[in-house]
Amino acid sequence: MGDGTARSGREADAAALDGADPLAAYRERFVVADDRLVYLDGNSLGRLPHRAVNLAAEVVRDQWGGRLVRHWNEGWLEVTGRIGDKIGRLVGATPGEVVLADSTTVCLYKAAVAALRARPGRGVVVTDDANFPSDIQALRAAAATVGGGHSVVVVPGDGVDGPVDAVADALDDTVALVSLSHVAYRSGWCWDLSATTAAAHAAGALVLWDLSHSVGVVPIDLGAAEADLAVGCTYKYLNGGPGAPAFVYVPHDRPELVNPVAGWQGSDDPFRFDPDAGPAPGVAGFVTGTPPIVSAALVEPGVDLVLEAGVNAIRAKSEALTQRFVALADGQLASLGFNLATPRDPARRGSHVSLTHPDARAVGQALIHEQDTIGDFRPPDMLRYGFAPLYTTYAEVDAAIQRTAAVVTDGGADRWRGAAPVVP
Amino acid sequence: MGDGTARSGREADAAALDGADPLAAYRERFVVADDRLVYLDGNSLGRLPHRAVNLAAEVVRDQWGGRLVRHWNEGWLEVTGRIGDKIGRLVGATPGEVVLADSTTVCLYKAAVAALRARPGRGVVVTDDANFPSDIQALRAAAATVGGGHSVVVVPGDGVDGPVDAVADALDDTVALVSLSHVAYRSGWCWDLSATTAAAHAAGALVLWDLSHSVGVVPIDLGAAEADLAVGCTYKYLNGGPGAPAFVYVPHDRPELVNPVAGWQGSDDPFRFDPDAGPAPGVAGFVTGTPPIVSAALVEPGVDLVLEAGVNAIRAKSEALTQRFVALADGQLASLGFNLATPRDPARRGSHVSLTHPDARAVGQALIHEQDTIGDFRPPDMLRYGFAPLYTTYAEVDAAIQRTAAVVTDGGADRWRGAAPVVP
Repeated sequence: MGDGTARSGREADAAALDGADPLAAYRERFVVADDRLVYLDGNSLGRLPHRAVNLAAEVVRDQWGGRLVRHWNEGWLEVTGRIGDKIGRLVGATPGEVVLADSTTVCLYKAAVAALRARPGRGVVVTDDANFPSDIQALRAAAATVGGGHSVVVVPGDGVDGPVDAVADALDDTVALVSLSHVAYRSGWCWDLSATTAAAHAAGALVLWDLSHSVGVVPIDLGAAEADLAVGCTYKYLNGGPGAPAFVYVPHDRPELVNPVAGWQGSDDPFRFDPDAGPAPGVAGFVTGTPPIVSAALVEPGVDLVLEAGVNAIRAKSEALTQRFVALADGQLASLGFNLATPRDPARRGSHVSLTHPDARAVGQALIHEQDTIGDFRPPDMLRYGFAPLYTTYAEVDAAIQRTAAVVTDGGADRWRGAAPVVP
Repeated sequence: MGDGTARSGREADAAALDGADPLAAYRERFVVADDRLVYLDGNSLGRLPHRAVNLAAEVVRDQWGGRLVRHWNEGWLEVTGRIGDKIGRLVGATPGEVVLADSTTVCLYKAAVAALRARPGRGVVVTDDANFPSDIQALRAAAATVGGGHSVVVVPGDGVDGPVDAVADALDDTVALVSLSHVAYRSGWCWDLSATTAAAHAAGALVLWDLSHSVGVVPIDLGAAEADLAVGCTYKYLNGGPGAPAFVYVPHDRPELVNPVAGWQGSDDPFRFDPDAGPAPGVAGFVTGTPPIVSAALVEPGVDLVLEAGVNAIRAKSEALTQRFVALADGQLASLGFNLATPRDPARRGSHVSLTHPDARAVGQALIHEQDTIGDFRPPDMLRYGFAPLYTTYAEVDAAIQRTAAVVTDGGADRWRGAAPVVP
């Protein structure tokens, strides 16, 4: 069978898969400005829901421009809680346990300090080096805040080549908190959230999950897992827009978990203007200042789409997309110097797949400049391909493989070595 | 002279003042959806600049929708610094000393912790009870963060009826930090920023200013005053939109002032993804997580309008507006039970005027429901009238006085006692 025939066969396969995809119609709910663009960076910034275009105009022109300060009492005061509750349905929370607040890092800092103060007498935070660097920085900041000799132990991370034991090995009666990214930003490794939470609890530690790379694409049940705290990003698989505010999860009936950055919007009655006001009950107390309403409001359309489609259906397609990408990469990219850096077990990965290559940076540049294909590069040698099942097609999976191979075989990487990055 | 004649005379005066107003044309740069509405709450939420309507569409549809993650390198990474530098021109900062970051309260918390850590051996934070409650909460949170017996001393505030000495009296060699609102949110009292900074410095304390109620309407020179840190809100007189991110000011060459909530966007190279990365130099290191881009970008049109008009011209009109309001209130409202709660000396007030009245809450409701007049109510008995010189007219000043009087004389307050608030 000649190469052209093989390609035709693959294209027919992809077309058949897209034709049978129960989520196919969701792609039309997003702005797709350029049909040749293969966009595999929804794990960094999700696409724009059409609804968000009109909503932005409503919030700015009608609500801000038309209603002015009155709109605080006509909807804005409820925005972060209402959207939080919707996100709560994606992560196994009940109403009142999730709220939109600050950036992911600020939310993580607040949650970590709250956890450490709730575990006096224990001084160690355990995380792994697969965690997002900003998380590790925030955990160190939290440890410094609590003082008293608190420290952050960063164990070797990822379980790409087998089970990870380093976190389990680090658990002892000095550990106050275990904080991990549910899905690692580089490898895509996905922790068994329930088992890891249970192991930490068995050692007497609290657990704080960062769901940034899993929320909206991996089924999550924080309640069943009895997780203590969680935070997550809204601009990846939730499609909330650049820098959209993150969310915090704190279960009901955990009064020992107190927001360390108290502020009026997290107090029990902001408009009493009482500096001695206590915190609002539950996760509402983890709000600090006034939330950025325009950015916050725009989170809702993407969350609504995820709720409408259902996380289980999204996860099923996600596994199929990543599985196909891995299989095609094995067949067509391994021989070109690419190595899989993501777990082969679908249960142990999120919705992006990473490949290492000695020329990864230049390959990534060539993919953007010459092939209209956007993934991203993570130093020193990793290319990430993210699959957002609400809009990623099987045809895009195939195109990404073909275009990556083409860049290497036609020397494209040589042409872009040292180019300024297009994508952060 | 009959009442009708008096009214006609006043209306002619107001019309003449508006006709001679060098800033009159700026009102057309804002969305004014309802010409009968007298909007005197720009000190809470500024009006929507027309430019922001189109900008919102550009940022959402063209940048997010069209360019997707590429737009980080095409402009978003520079947004908070560029707008910060523009705000810097309003507060006496040089480029690189101001950045947009988190909510005002989170910014204040970070700045306060940085200050306290830079003054080891001193354990007291001084503020006054005229400060915004969220500021006092954040200062207490900062004191708890630094630990070691730090405490916040809240002295009696405001200088409505004469000079304030309580802050000066509290200064001694235990004081690490003085933190005040440049303009008090209730009375409108305006501190002499230079003199107060100098007094604190003479006692060996650092000074952290909250400029929320002064930036964009009162001339500020943090550099000349040698202020140590400042924060401020962008959605009042800067017209940045609901909950728009606040700004932080840290002077150059103050390496001892370190952001206590380290995060990747404040590190020296976020895209090296290094958990051990040090902070970016200067105020850029005070950023923590990814800023809410849509809300942040919309700050720029309002700031541009303030820069174009010039703060000195804005201040001149502000003094004229407040002076006229005070004079008319003396003549027409004092006899109806209203008392001025704002300094009579224009140099000692910002751009809002507060009146107390036993029925203030109900009067405020009646003004909104029956008179299309929006100020706001601050418990227990205060009505605030804010004057934003870029769009507030002298005719609105007069209308606010007439309508306030009308509400009381026709028993309007009785009709709205206990009504749910329209404006927070």
